Amino acid sequence: MAHYGAKVVVPIDLKKKPWEQKHPLHNRWHPDIPVVAEVKDGEVFRVEMVDFSGGGITSDYSAEDVKHADQSIKKPWEQALPLHNRWHPEIPPVAHVKVSEVFRVEMVDWTGSIIKDDDSAADVKFIDLSTVHYLSGPIRVVDKKETPAMPGDLLAVEICNLGPLPGDEWGYTATFDRENGGGFLTDHFPCATKAIWYFEGIYAYSPHIPGVRFPGLTHPGIIGTAPSMELLNIWNEREREVEENGHKSLKLCEVLHSRPLANLPSTKGCHLGKIKKGTAEWEKIAKEAARTIPGRENGGNCDIKNLSRGSKIYLPVFVEGANLSTGDMHFSQGDGEVSFCGAIEMSGFLELKCEIIRGGMKEYLTPMGPTPLHVNPIFEIGPVEPRFSEWLVFEGISVDESGRQHFLDASVAYKRAVLNAIDYLSKFGYSKEQVYLLLSCCPCEGRISGIVDAPNAVATLAIPTAIFDQDIRPKAGKVPIGPRLVRKPDVLRCSYDGNLPTTKNPAASM
Amino acid sequence: MAHYGAKVVVPIDLKKKPWEQKHPLHNRWHPDIPVVAEVKDGEVFRVEMVDFSGGGITSDYSAEDVKHADQSIKKPWEQALPLHNRWHPEIPPVAHVKVSEVFRVEMVDWTGSIIKDDDSAADVKFIDLSTVHYLSGPIRVVDKKETPAMPGDLLAVEICNLGPLPGDEWGYTATFDRENGGGFLTDHFPCATKAIWYFEGIYAYSPHIPGVRFPGLTHPGIIGTAPSMELLNIWNEREREVEENGHKSLKLCEVLHSRPLANLPSTKGCHLGKIKKGTAEWEKIAKEAARTIPGRENGGNCDIKNLSRGSKIYLPVFVEGANLSTGDMHFSQGDGEVSFCGAIEMSGFLELKCEIIRGGMKEYLTPMGPTPLHVNPIFEIGPVEPRFSEWLVFEGISVDESGRQHFLDASVAYKRAVLNAIDYLSKFGYSKEQVYLLLSCCPCEGRISGIVDAPNAVATLAIPTAIFDQDIRPKAGKVPIGPRLVRKPDVLRCSYDGNLPTTKNPAASM
Amino acid sequence: MAHYGAKVVVPIDLKKKPWEQKHPLHNRWHPDIPVVAEVKDGEVFRVEMVDFSGGGITSDYSAEDVKHADQSIKKPWEQALPLHNRWHPEIPPVAHVKVSEVFRVEMVDWTGSIIKDDDSAADVKFIDLSTVHYLSGPIRVVDKKETPAMPGDLLAVEICNLGPLPGDEWGYTATFDRENGGGFLTDHFPCATKAIWYFEGIYAYSPHIPGVRFPGLTHPGIIGTAPSMELLNIWNEREREVEENGHKSLKLCEVLHSRPLANLPSTKGCHLGKIKKGTAEWEKIAKEAARTIPGRENGGNCDIKNLSRGSKIYLPVFVEGANLSTGDMHFSQGDGEVSFCGAIEMSGFLELKCEIIRGGMKEYLTPMGPTPLHVNPIFEIGPVEPRFSEWLVFEGISVDESGRQHFLDASVAYKRAVLNAIDYLSKFGYSKEQVYLLLSCCPCEGRISGIVDAPNAVATLAIPTAIFDQDIRPKAGKVPIGPRLVRKPDVLRCSYDGNLPTTKNPAASM
Amino acid sequence: MAHYGAKVVVPIDLKKKPWEQKHPLHNRWHPDIPVVAEVKDGEVFRVEMVDFSGGGITSDYSAEDVKHADQSIKKPWEQALPLHNRWHPEIPPVAHVKVSEVFRVEMVDWTGSIIKDDDSAADVKFIDLSTVHYLSGPIRVVDKKETPAMPGDLLAVEICNLGPLPGDEWGYTATFDRENGGGFLTDHFPCATKAIWYFEGIYAYSPHIPGVRFPGLTHPGIIGTAPSMELLNIWNEREREVEENGHKSLKLCEVLHSRPLANLPSTKGCHLGKIKKGTAEWEKIAKEAARTIPGRENGGNCDIKNLSRGSKIYLPVFVEGANLSTGDMHFSQGDGEVSFCGAIEMSGFLELKCEIIRGGMKEYLTPMGPTPLHVNPIFEIGPVEPRFSEWLVFEGISVDESGRQHFLDASVAYKRAVLNAIDYLSKFGYSKEQVYLLLSCCPCEGRISGIVDAPNAVATLAIPTAIFDQDIRPKAGKVPIGPRLVRKPDVLRCSYDGNLPTTKNPAASM
Repeated sequence: MAHYGAKVVVPIDLKKKPWEQKHPLHNRWHPDIPVVAEVKDGEVFRVEMVDFSGGGITSDYSAEDVKHADQSIKKPWEQALPLHNRWHPEIPPVAHVKVSEVFRVEMVDWTGSIIKDDDSAADVKFIDLSTVHYLSGPIRVVDKKETPAMPGDLLAVEICNLGPLPGDEWGYTATFDRENGGGFLTDHFPCATKAIWYFEGIYAYSPHIPGVRFPGLTHPGIIGTAPSMELLNIWNEREREVEENGHKSLKLCEVLHSRPLANLPSTKGCHLGKIKKGTAEWEKIAKEAARTIPGRENGGNCDIKNLSRGSKIYLPVFVEGANLSTGDMHFSQGDGEVSFCGAIEMSGFLELKCEIIRGGMKEYLTPMGPTPLHVNPIFEIGPVEPRFSEWLVFEGISVDESGRQHFLDASVAYKRAVLNAIDYLSKFGYSKEQVYLLLSCCPCEGRISGIVDAPNAVATLAIPTAIFDQDIRPKAGKVPIGPRLVRKPDVLRCSYDGNLPTTKNPAASM
Repeated sequence: MAHYGAKVVVPIDLKKKPWEQKHPLHNRWHPDIPVVAEVKDGEVFRVEMVDFSGGGITSDYSAEDVKHADQSIKKPWEQALPLHNRWHPEIPPVAHVKVSEVFRVEMVDWTGSIIKDDDSAADVKFIDLSTVHYLSGPIRVVDKKETPAMPGDLLAVEICNLGPLPGDEWGYTATFDRENGGGFLTDHFPCATKAIWYFEGIYAYSPHIPGVRFPGLTHPGIIGTAPSMELLNIWNEREREVEENGHKSLKLCEVLHSRPLANLPSTKGCHLGKIKKGTAEWEKIAKEAARTIPGRENGGNCDIKNLSRGSKIYLPVFVEGANLSTGDMHFSQGDGEVSFCGAIEMSGFLELKCEIIRGGMKEYLTPMGPTPLHVNPIFEIGPVEPRFSEWLVFEGISVDESGRQHFLDASVAYKRAVLNAIDYLSKFGYSKEQVYLLLSCCPCEGRISGIVDAPNAVATLAIPTAIFDQDIRPKAGKVPIGPRLVRKPDVLRCSYDGNLPTTKNPAASM
Repeated sequence: MAHYGAKVVVPIDLKKKPWEQKHPLHNRWHPDIPVVAEVKDGEVFRVEMVDFSGGGITSDYSAEDVKHADQSIKKPWEQALPLHNRWHPEIPPVAHVKVSEVFRVEMVDWTGSIIKDDDSAADVKFIDLSTVHYLSGPIRVVDKKETPAMPGDLLAVEICNLGPLPGDEWGYTATFDRENGGGFLTDHFPCATKAIWYFEGIYAYSPHIPGVRFPGLTHPGIIGTAPSMELLNIWNEREREVEENGHKSLKLCEVLHSRPLANLPSTKGCHLGKIKKGTAEWEKIAKEAARTIPGRENGGNCDIKNLSRGSKIYLPVFVEGANLSTGDMHFSQGDGEVSFCGAIEMSGFLELKCEIIRGGMKEYLTPMGPTPLHVNPIFEIGPVEPRFSEWLVFEGISVDESGRQHFLDASVAYKRAVLNAIDYLSKFGYSKEQVYLLLSCCPCEGRISGIVDAPNAVATLAIPTAIFDQDIRPKAGKVPIGPRLVRKPDVLRCSYDGNLPTTKNPAASM
Repeated sequence: MAHYGAKVVVPIDLKKKPWEQKHPLHNRWHPDIPVVAEVKDGEVFRVEMVDFSGGGITSDYSAEDVKHADQSIKKPWEQALPLHNRWHPEIPPVAHVKVSEVFRVEMVDWTGSIIKDDDSAADVKFIDLSTVHYLSGPIRVVDKKETPAMPGDLLAVEICNLGPLPGDEWGYTATFDRENGGGFLTDHFPCATKAIWYFEGIYAYSPHIPGVRFPGLTHPGIIGTAPSMELLNIWNEREREVEENGHKSLKLCEVLHSRPLANLPSTKGCHLGKIKKGTAEWEKIAKEAARTIPGRENGGNCDIKNLSRGSKIYLPVFVEGANLSTGDMHFSQGDGEVSFCGAIEMSGFLELKCEIIRGGMKEYLTPMGPTPLHVNPIFEIGPVEPRFSEWLVFEGISVDESGRQHFLDASVAYKRAVLNAIDYLSKFGYSKEQVYLLLSCCPCEGRISGIVDAPNAVATLAIPTAIFDQDIRPKAGKVPIGPRLVRKPDVLRCSYDGNLPTTKNPAASM
């Protein structure tokens, strides 16, 4: 961290309490409070500060503190059927189900209750991401004759029903600090922010994003089968390669600023269900087991927002019993889940029913890649979802914020479509952070509209107009402004204490 | 091309006419036609042949030949209101309209009738792409007091109605030869192919892709306003940069194989409406005028497939009168228009109505980039479109066909989702080329599902199941096979005569 | 009519021309025009007046006058393929079509251009209803081997496309005078009224019902096959019975006030296509031929509002060749078509395609009644129609306006639901006549919700909220009132000159 | 019961066991079983028999037996908050809620667990209908200042969520015996029948109606406010009038055969919540309190099938506190609920939220009838429901089964549409009883299509084709028949032991 050449720095050590800092902090105004540093006219200097939320939630809160703040909620590892947060063939099943029987899976929210329904985003800012996502399972699936699903089969999982856990009808949408998780637009929005949502049956509303309300298209963000060792090795190898060499070999990284490029296995924060921490087995598996962040061949973190009631997922089976796991329940999500912690994240339940299609991988999935394991699941979307008649659509092309032309790059085009939508909606009384979170969790559609008209990919973001309490379409008159349109209060927000530059829109000052 | 060790080869020289070949071809059966080669029992031999359409349409057909083949159709430059195929502020309007009045715009298909309803894809293979897209307009828009739309205004264009030109109810979907246009998957499918579609009211069906029928979501592929000189210069500069340096600086080019990287201004094939070819003015403008291939700040080739009846487009105005142009009518298109000539391309009409939102660019569009001109249009989607209840969804992640990991690259992820869908559907009796064209033109949805879960972007392709005459969902039994499922005839296809390698799916042979 | 005790009356005799009135009318302002009556300060007086349209369109206009007013429009009987307005097996076909071929049928509006786009409802008031509906056809249908459709077959008719006739993009909605046609609520609304609608592509708007705009769900009101003599006799017999004895035997007539109870064959106004008026054949057929008003076993006036693009109708065949006829095109209609001339009536075209299902009547239709001819057609609704997300629903039970209980009577319940909706919407600035016409032609849904819970049938009328330019839902505040909400101008309206009592809502004065 | 003059009768006494009958029954075939009666050639004789289900479920089961069969389920009157099954202003509230708070109401099925998930329809046949419907409530509603809803207010009730009671995920559809409840088609189907449905999340399937599966559009059949004494008196008076004189004065009764014409107050089977049976208060109220069968001014048994998640009901308030009651939960229902016990009836829960619109009755509801109390509620339908793309539509006109013409009678027309649909679908392997129950509970739409084209009302019944596992559309080939299409097993069915004639379709034997 270069600090931009600042000679004078008033630092903060996040491991210390406010009064233990090198320059102890103050929370009153008084002429006698002693000076801690001096600067010259024109000199660049740097002041570090704790989170504004002050009082209790000071910056010395570590993720560990936050995690233990509420002792009343059972921890993921205290559950009767222990949760896990890694993919590995050797994590033992916690339950067995037969095909055709409807079974219920309950799950914690993806962070295991670290994020609270409170008045600060500090829990988001300081979250220890090595612990996500907590998954329920694995579940071993057998047929009516007790023969388990076998490698090469397809596991068809029908989502019969799903919803929030009774008594826990709330969720949150957040974006991480640029240096601890980031998000699709983290170079524009480096601060951790958070909005709380409450559910009234099918509808969600947020005190932090007033003026919108929408029905949920609830779905599990993660559903997948356990990988075989062979597949796991493929993952670890290719992701290590991108993490280690991607900066040099992938120019795309200039535009998308989430870091690290990949999340490699780590024993830190690792939970492996029934496997006891500290054992040799645990050590071995924890070093190999894949993180749950990206979607992969086994399904996993697909974040397909329409995977709701009545849907069906056809998952490849890589290990005996299939070892189905699921988690990361979303009350609602927009395509792309742009703010990263971007759906309305919640705890919840699923009622599922499985079928085994014997030999279905060969029958229905064509591998695409070096091995027969390079496949992807197939999904079937059901007839029950909120549908909207009218949409306002924002477009982006693959020209970045600096005006640079990219070649058919749908990620750049979508980034620009989202930026355009944020700017537009912020004219209607919202802060940009409110819109960023909203577009991450409302049922908006992100489309690849054109991917062949070189050099521009065209991506679009379609927003259902009915979720707003005002008419957001352009009109011949001016955008109505005034007190009724200031959408207060705002999202909960922390300071960004890092040094990475924010991407500026050069045209913004005009 | 190793010819698989064939010792005997009956070659074809595509530069020669059938009767000029080393072994002259025949088109009758007769015992006296002399033998041209002999082979031994069990020996591998190779026979090359001209395109099946034979006789006239041999490979020595140049685009120029094809273009003039049918003299009965009026050429774009022979129309009463001459068409144009470039963007430039100085192309003079061919018509004037007032706000609130409904007016009708008719248009040729994007190639100006070069592609025919015939039995060969040769017209596609040899097309001269320097001439596309033929646009109708420009149309100057004034308000009720005859004051024209002015730079800084927004032009709201409502699509009151649209459809095929009466008497011309057919269209085509095609993919170009890898060395003359290409397409999203050109490294997999390097040959030019073509399918003809006929319309029965709202439905389209193709003799070349039997077993599917779907209602059109008809829309103009291109609608836009004229750029100012300043904007035009920005385009030309940034696209020149990518064309000249992109190969080195943009790694995406390794995965997406359409070439060139950008289409720079060219006097070849240029049509400028009322400006007479050969004049100094023509020469100057033709050298500056932007090609119509990519969508840009002025709208242009957006290819937003839902922009149908009842939609509204809010276009920025850069020159006095707005100078609205439109063309490239699509009977139907899938998100991404993957095969490039990928919608059901047709001639057609639009009934439009304009409003001017004075000062609307500043009011509603926030520029994103170095200048106030770096904006994108906004679109409003209407309540009338075919809607489907059930979808089969294919997923792709940003790992390419070689197994290499890319970082949050939605283009790579979408490429893989489309490849997965093609492989899957080809199990139901279709050739891969049939599916490639079908996914390019049927109302399928291409979504960016996850763009934050490093390192994998997740893109999905959702296909409405109701367009097929068979149940295409995975089932516990095997995929039904047999005569009824062979979808014959196939698409029209040319040979690929180039030397670029085809991308092989390493797992395909397993 | 008690005249509210007015002593001074300036009367109008509707049988006389303006200049023949006791007090001749004037149509200029001038001080020298003599006074016709004097009134005292505070005195109640009554002025009668001719219709506002004044000048030409006075009440002595007969339907015949109106019909001939515009000589520029070709009359139905002047068409190249003469139209007909009766059902009879012996009306000769005017065209032949083969199965699988798409053919186009154009049609006049149901009245044959009697109703004009003008400023008066006089044409509605004085219409000669003996002439409706003008149908295009009959069309003889044969299979690929030229064998005609035969009695006992099913004729499957697909609606490939349809719409207004180019250049004639307007329509009208009207309600008839209580003594010349009436309507569902004619006892409440005895006056003839009319609203004109103009089409902007898929949308219709009316200068007479401001503040609403909606996309059309265009369909033919009438499509049917020719009856056999046996079926025709059944119709004539049963309808004569109800016309002659219904008043005594059917208590329902107390609540529904349209008269006559049935429209029996009449030579007056009869048109029989190619059969020449004045011939013996014409006289015979005209006496037997059924009127086109009601839907019957042959299809006919079904008024199924969703029978739009992509729909299919399975019609029983009663005579050789099927003899398909169609007419009464509706740009849009609400379920029930309550004001009788209640859709947006227009001229238009259909593009149709037929199949013959040999022996299909026996295979698919079970007769329900004394003969095998007592069948009804089947309909298939396609995937393309405007769909709405939110509806406001009005309910009616089978208790009539006087408070009298009826037994499971869905007609009474629906009458009350419509009355409730009219009263409700009239609070939002509309006149009741505006709402009556609107509910007759907008895409509202009339449902039989409960038909078993004695003694009340429950019927509902669901109105899509998106067609209004204001929020019509109940809110905690008062209904907003004021100038902006007065929906002016109103529908065109004539006086009601008859003596039948209007149904009063006893609670209305409270 | 006239027995049609049969001299020989083999009677059954339903109070006795099979072996206690005058002529003891036998359940084996053997030549030595003695003759119980002799008849002459040509003589009319009558044999009575017990229910086919035989063995345990003999006909000596009385409704009382059935009701008490399962002691494990708490009776409605044993609930902590006692239920009620009558409407009366003096039934005291069991709970209080404030506006804006979400509250949960649980309810038994409408019969209070009398109908079982078992193998016989005897419980349906012998049900004591004096006890239905069991309602939860009344609930007193107050505003934030504790002021109760007052007469003249509107109570806006939002349905936030709803569903089956966890652990009780099943339901039933039934039709009553013609002499104990009947149904819309009871003259065609006089026997009691029953089908059980099991829920898999959003879907329901029935072992008794194989081959269909559909998502529920779950809703409360009954929701209403307590009537005032004045309104109650209006109900009792008008219903007594129809019950006592309707046969003579309402000709419609000839066609609809449910009896009695109305259900007047009865102390038999009456439950009044907190009011203790046997007290003078109970006696008084029980004699006055209205039955819950029909929908009325207070809402009540509206059976609006789309009143699901996200809907809102605007109920008039007649007594202080509104006294909201609800019950009769339906997993799914077709428009009309034709078989009477016709939805998928179940127990369930509602999560509700109330608002009070002060003075809203005057503001939003126009009374239609002799008093200001003659109003109907208004409903708002939400954006979340299963939607279907394709429908098969059956039509009926107001001509009855005997061929008699009725005048614009929508009830007759709908009866015929339903009969047509039953006959049609029975060609696809279903029994008519299966279809009758299916059309009563699946999400089919019953429309009043034309109500003005004298003499025929046109009603339509639209059935979503996607609920069947076969293609039910007419096709050029024959209806496929054979073993796979026999939909076995059938519905549970009792004998009809009465003497009322069944309506015969005269054309059925042809």
